[in-house]
Amino acid sequence: MIIDKLIDEIKRKENPSVVGLDPRLDFVPGFIKEEAFKSYGRSLKGAAAAFLSFNKRIIDAVADIVPAVKPQIAMYERLGADGVAAYIDTINYAKGKNLVVIGDVKRGDVASTAKAYSDGHIGRVRIDGEEFTVFNEDFITVNPYLGGDSLTPYIEDCEKYDKGVFVLVKTSNPMSGQIQDLPIVDKGEIYQEVGLIVSGLSCKLTGKNGFSSIGAVVGATHREQAEKLRRIMPSVFFLVPGYGAQGGSAEDIAVCFNDDGIGAVVNSSRGIIAAYKNEKYEAFGETGFAEAARRAAIDMKEELVAAIK
Amino acid sequence: MIIDKLIDEIKRKENPSVVGLDPRLDFVPGFIKEEAFKSYGRSLKGAAAAFLSFNKRIIDAVADIVPAVKPQIAMYERLGADGVAAYIDTINYAKGKNLVVIGDVKRGDVASTAKAYSDGHIGRVRIDGEEFTVFNEDFITVNPYLGGDSLTPYIEDCEKYDKGVFVLVKTSNPMSGQIQDLPIVDKGEIYQEVGLIVSGLSCKLTGKNGFSSIGAVVGATHREQAEKLRRIMPSVFFLVPGYGAQGGSAEDIAVCFNDDGIGAVVNSSRGIIAAYKNEKYEAFGETGFAEAARRAAIDMKEELVAAIK
Repeated sequence: MIIDKLIDEIKRKENPSVVGLDPRLDFVPGFIKEEAFKSYGRSLKGAAAAFLSFNKRIIDAVADIVPAVKPQIAMYERLGADGVAAYIDTINYAKGKNLVVIGDVKRGDVASTAKAYSDGHIGRVRIDGEEFTVFNEDFITVNPYLGGDSLTPYIEDCEKYDKGVFVLVKTSNPMSGQIQDLPIVDKGEIYQEVGLIVSGLSCKLTGKNGFSSIGAVVGATHREQAEKLRRIMPSVFFLVPGYGAQGGSAEDIAVCFNDDGIGAVVNSSRGIIAAYKNEKYEAFGETGFAEAARRAAIDMKEELVAAIK
Repeated sequence: MIIDKLIDEIKRKENPSVVGLDPRLDFVPGFIKEEAFKSYGRSLKGAAAAFLSFNKRIIDAVADIVPAVKPQIAMYERLGADGVAAYIDTINYAKGKNLVVIGDVKRGDVASTAKAYSDGHIGRVRIDGEEFTVFNEDFITVNPYLGGDSLTPYIEDCEKYDKGVFVLVKTSNPMSGQIQDLPIVDKGEIYQEVGLIVSGLSCKLTGKNGFSSIGAVVGATHREQAEKLRRIMPSVFFLVPGYGAQGGSAEDIAVCFNDDGIGAVVNSSRGIIAAYKNEKYEAFGETGFAEAARRAAIDMKEELVAAIK
């Protein structure tokens, strides 16, 4: 089961972290951009080519030390069809390096539409009898605002094709509480209610490690809520954004893990992929951006492992 | 202001409806599919070409009678990069026919990521000094679960580039109440709270017709909630899905309008674009699918106008 593959890789690499592949042109070293622009012009296609080339080198640099990568589709979709092609190529490249791929797509729509997203991302698309896999992420993130029936198509495909989802429960942004922390009459807050829904859905896809392929997104920046959620949804694995650049510390994320140090995977994007722009790693220089990313990924791993203990 | 363009077109065409361009291969007549497959194979590219060709003929058939179209990106994204290209081509074609285009994308993410979606869909993308418009919808739909800061990037681009958004408030699906109808301590239900947030955001982009370019998605299938929302958010224009195939009747949607018959635009997708598959319009046959769509669009207009009076 895909959640077991993720957990087994976390154990094998002793690293509960995921590298967020959220490229921006100002993260991409000049020499990579110039190469891409020479081939495709200063265009959407050129920018997409620069992203793919950048991602491949980052993936090469971290594949042996991290269990998973998380491309954020918005960064690619921003470039239109060429960007989406680069997103798909990034997924395929990462899977070729045996990394678990979490597509951060946060889709959410009524069931018949959710089915279309699910077909494309984690299921199959049938065209006149022929079957295609399109995006083929291992996991995707999904939005719960539309209710349980909007999640069903994804969960059916998770069962059918051994995929997983992380449902947004408590997000890492500063104003996430505006809706998510509203207190419900005779119940807890919205995020807890969503947590319980996810917990209920998660029952059927539980793997050998005791966690389900139906997981939850729980931000590193809201320690109190994360602590509560870890208690009320024991078999739900957490994808934890907000570490580093967004303000979540290693101590904040410790509450997302069980006593055995399992239970979550923590994302860092900019902190890893743009490490060479950070004072701490600037000695690597622009040409050493991938090595800087590797060094930052090792540092993050060590911080996390220390905090969890 | 874009909301005024939409309302002026609704008035001019005396038609408060929008045609949902949500193609599926089984809606597309065989002769269109065969033509596309002959050029591009039974492939994702072939299916995307079939969608575009299908959409163009639907658009040609309804452009003089409906004010707007609403492509649902999931149907295109399902086909990967080729599908996304067909989505963009559909938008451009519809805009060439002077239709208002509402991109049903339901994106929602933390602010820095929302900015990337917004750049691509309704803003601008800068590549090394050059500026590109990518998707260029007039309006997009967005998801509020992450809170107000996740909506800000869209609203800034609405101001800057004269665009609009419809924020999901109360969706049309059967289980939308699971989260959206939860009662908040000392307040109304979640959907009302979201409605008030949207109402607050809508203030600054109010046009000459008294409505804002910051609108709300309010399903036709939940009459009581729609009625309440119409009262508490008087300057917020509604995009109303769920009419027809999903079960919302013309009477259900009447509550979304003000006494002067303005205040909402009602979507129908399958009921229009696949009308020729419906017993009522089957005399048009497969080759007459576009004329069937036109007839169904006229019937819908007449039903809506009668119900609103």
